[in-house]
Amino acid sequence: MAEVLRRRLPAGRVVTDPDIVAGLSHDQAVWAPVGRAVAVVRAKSTAEVQIVVRACLEQGVPLVARGAGTGLSGGANAVEGGVILALDGMDRVLEVDELERLAVVQPGVVNDDLRAHVAALDLWYPPDPASSPWSTIGGNVATNAGGVCCVKYGVTRDYVLALEVVTGTGEVVRLGRRTSKGVAGYDLVGLMVGAEGTLGVVTEITVRLRPLPPVGVTAVGYFDSVGQAGDAVRATAAAGLRPAALELVDRHCLRAVDAWKNMGLSAEADVVLLARFDDEGRAAEEGARRIVDCFRGAGSTWADRSETAEEAEMLFAARRLAFPALERLGPVLTEDVCVPIGAVAEMLARIDRTAEKHRITIANIAHVGDGNLHPLLVTEHGDAAAQVRARAAFDDIIADALDLGGTVTGEHGVGLLKRPGLTRELAPAVLEMHREVKRALDPAGILNPGKVFGPA
Amino acid sequence: MAEVLRRRLPAGRVVTDPDIVAGLSHDQAVWAPVGRAVAVVRAKSTAEVQIVVRACLEQGVPLVARGAGTGLSGGANAVEGGVILALDGMDRVLEVDELERLAVVQPGVVNDDLRAHVAALDLWYPPDPASSPWSTIGGNVATNAGGVCCVKYGVTRDYVLALEVVTGTGEVVRLGRRTSKGVAGYDLVGLMVGAEGTLGVVTEITVRLRPLPPVGVTAVGYFDSVGQAGDAVRATAAAGLRPAALELVDRHCLRAVDAWKNMGLSAEADVVLLARFDDEGRAAEEGARRIVDCFRGAGSTWADRSETAEEAEMLFAARRLAFPALERLGPVLTEDVCVPIGAVAEMLARIDRTAEKHRITIANIAHVGDGNLHPLLVTEHGDAAAQVRARAAFDDIIADALDLGGTVTGEHGVGLLKRPGLTRELAPAVLEMHREVKRALDPAGILNPGKVFGPA
Repeated sequence: MAEVLRRRLPAGRVVTDPDIVAGLSHDQAVWAPVGRAVAVVRAKSTAEVQIVVRACLEQGVPLVARGAGTGLSGGANAVEGGVILALDGMDRVLEVDELERLAVVQPGVVNDDLRAHVAALDLWYPPDPASSPWSTIGGNVATNAGGVCCVKYGVTRDYVLALEVVTGTGEVVRLGRRTSKGVAGYDLVGLMVGAEGTLGVVTEITVRLRPLPPVGVTAVGYFDSVGQAGDAVRATAAAGLRPAALELVDRHCLRAVDAWKNMGLSAEADVVLLARFDDEGRAAEEGARRIVDCFRGAGSTWADRSETAEEAEMLFAARRLAFPALERLGPVLTEDVCVPIGAVAEMLARIDRTAEKHRITIANIAHVGDGNLHPLLVTEHGDAAAQVRARAAFDDIIADALDLGGTVTGEHGVGLLKRPGLTRELAPAVLEMHREVKRALDPAGILNPGKVFGPA
Repeated sequence: MAEVLRRRLPAGRVVTDPDIVAGLSHDQAVWAPVGRAVAVVRAKSTAEVQIVVRACLEQGVPLVARGAGTGLSGGANAVEGGVILALDGMDRVLEVDELERLAVVQPGVVNDDLRAHVAALDLWYPPDPASSPWSTIGGNVATNAGGVCCVKYGVTRDYVLALEVVTGTGEVVRLGRRTSKGVAGYDLVGLMVGAEGTLGVVTEITVRLRPLPPVGVTAVGYFDSVGQAGDAVRATAAAGLRPAALELVDRHCLRAVDAWKNMGLSAEADVVLLARFDDEGRAAEEGARRIVDCFRGAGSTWADRSETAEEAEMLFAARRLAFPALERLGPVLTEDVCVPIGAVAEMLARIDRTAEKHRITIANIAHVGDGNLHPLLVTEHGDAAAQVRARAAFDDIIADALDLGGTVTGEHGVGLLKRPGLTRELAPAVLEMHREVKRALDPAGILNPGKVFGPA
C-alpha cells in the first residue's frame, strides 16, 4: 500500500518510519486500542486526499484522517493495516469575508490560529474547546467540538456553513452554502459534523463568524460541596441568566493546580464556580450581579464579581490548567457525560459516590452551565489494579448519566471509548439507522471503520 | 387501501370524501402539480401513524404527511394513488420544562399556539414564519422553517433537540436528546429537519426555548429605491449590528396593503426597511440609533426609531399583511432565494430587470438581514400568458441567485417547485449522496416520493 501511495503522491508525503507512524497512530484517549498502520500520508491538498481515498478504495484499505490528535475518545486511533491521513499540513486560512462574516479554512488550521486571525478584524470564531491551542478545525468538525462558551454560543456544528469533502466513493464534493440561511436539500453538512471521519474526509471548511464580543464581566463563587454548586447552577438556569461561560472546578483540580503553580486556590474553596457575562453595556454587570445572588442563595462561602481582568483571567487559567495539572499525577481517563441542568447536583453527588465505591480519585471540571461534566479519573502510573477500578467507575458514570436523562458524550465524541455507552444510549433501530447511513455514504467501509458505532 | 386502513384504525380516522381529500391534497404553492390521493387519514397518535406507515409499506403505497398545508413549494401535495396523513389533530403540548427550557409537542401544534403557551411562562420559541398563526411545528420541522427573527436567532433546526419518528421501515424511534449538548452518534435529528417528510414521519418534537426577550426598539428607514435599501443592509452588516429583525417591504406591497387597509404607507416611501433590536437595557436603543445612521448614510429619505410601540407594531403589521394583500390581486408565485448580504442590492436590481423583461409585477418582501428574498410574482386570475411569463421570471430569479453565490431556497423548501433549481444548485455527486441517504432511510421509497430531489 505504501508503495502504491508513493507512486501517486509527491515525494515526502508518505511516511513509513515506525516511530513516526506509531506517534501519529493515536489521540490522547488513555487505554483505547490502537491498530498498526501501514503508512502515514501527510497530505497537502484536496487532490492528494482524493488520491489517498481512491487508493484505499482500490486496495480495500481502511483510512483514518487526523488533525492534531488531541481527541479524548480514540476516534483518531489507527485501524489495523490502515493508512493514517494526517491533515495538519493543510493549515491555510483561505479567505475571511468580513461582510458575510465567514471564513474558509483548510482542516489543519489550529483553532486558536483561526481565532487570532479573525480577531484582527474584530471578528470571532466562538467554539473554544480546551484543546484550542493545538486542536485543528478539521478535528473540531469531526467531533462537533464544544468548549467553554457553548453554553451561550453553541457548538462547532452551529458555525459550519459549508464543507468540501472527499466522499466514501472518492469524489470531491461541496456541501452547504455561503448564505446565512438555506434549505436546498438534506443537511449533509450537519451530518458530516460530528461523524468522526466515518462518512467522508473534510478538506475545506466554511465557518460563520460573529462580531468580537466585549471582554465581559466575571463572577466567582466558592462552595463547600459540589451539591451546593449544583444547586447554584440550577438557580442560575431558573433565573433565566445567559452567561457566556459557567464552569465548575473542584478541590482535586484546585489542589493539583496549586501543587504545580502554587496559585493558592485550594485553601479558599472546595468547589469554584466561574461565570462570565459578555453582553453589551451594563447588561454584563447586571448578569454578574444576579449570578452572585444565585451563588449566595445556594450557600456559597464567598461570591463576588471579579474586581480586575487579571483576577478573572487567573481563575479561568486555573480552569484551563486543571487537566494538565492532573495529568502530572498519572494517566487521566476523561469522562464527558452531559445531563439535564436539573440533574447536575445529583450527578455530581453520584460521581463522588462512584469514586468512593471504586477507591479512585475522580476530579471534576465541568461546562456546568450546559450540564456537560468532565469527571477525570486519575490513576497512578503502572497501577494496573487502579486502572481496572477506573474502567468500572467510567461505566458507572455512564450508567448514572443515562439514568438521569443524559447522554454518554457531550462534546468529545464516541470514538472507541464510548462505543459501549452508545449502544446503551441508542435503541437498536436507531443504531441500525446509523449503519444504513454509513453504508449509504461509505459503501466500501473504508472510512475510520469500527469507530462510533462499531463494525457495520 | 382505504379499506385496509379502516380495518386497522379507529372509526372516523379514514376519509375518502372526494371534496375533503381534494382540499387536503395540496399546500399553498400555486401551479404545482397535485396527484390524486386515495384517502386521508386523520391520525391521533404515534401508534396510528405507525399503522398507516406499515400499511403503506405492505401495499407499496406512497404516503404524504401534512400539517396545516401552508407550504409554498408543493412539498405537501398529494402523490398519485397515495395516502395523505393529516397530523393537525395531534395538537397537544405534552410538556414544558421551565428549568431545562424545552417543550415537547405533537406535530400538529400550531406555531403561535406554542408561542402563546410558553410565553405564559416567560419563555419563547423563536422560529416565526409568516405562517405562524396557522402553520404547525411538524410542518415547520419538515421545511426547517425560518421567519423574521432568524437573522439573530436562527431557524427551526437550531431549536430541535429531539424527535420521535416513524421510520421508512415502520419503526418508532427517538432521535436526539434532552440535554443542551450531545454528540452521541450522527445528527439524525438535523437530517430529519428540512427533509420535507422524505426520510420519516415526525410524531413528536422536543424544542429548545429561550427566555422571552424584551419587546425591543424598532427603527424604520424610507428609501427611493431598492438599490439604496440594499446598500443600507450592507452598511448594517458592515457595522456589525445584530438586529432581531431586518425586513424589507417594497412599493408594490405598500400599495397593496394601502388598497386593502388604507394605512397610508405608499405615499411615504418606495421601499421601507424595518429593524428591531431586542437587546437588554440600553443596547437596544443604541442598536436602533446606529442602524438609523446606516439608513441615512445609504440615502434614506427618512429614517428614525419608532416613537411608540403602536407605530412599530403598525409597520410590522404592514409587513405581515403584504402577502395576503397581494393575493387579493391574483395568484402569487412566491420566490425564496437567499443571497450573500453583499449581493442583496444587486439581486434586487436584477429582480426589477426580470420584472421588466417578462412584463410582470414582482413585489418584494424580504428577510433582508440574512439575504433571504421573497420576490412575489403577481398575475391576474385566468391570465394564462402572464402565468407563462411568471414561470420564466421565476427561473431567471433562480439563475440570478445562483450566479450571485446564493441558494434557490432560503426557508420554504424544495418541494416540487424548486426541484429544477436544486438540480442546478447541487452537483450530480451531491444529488447522488441525497439519493443514497433517501434509499438508506426509506428503502421502499414510500415517504413523500418525488419531492425535493426527484425520483430516486
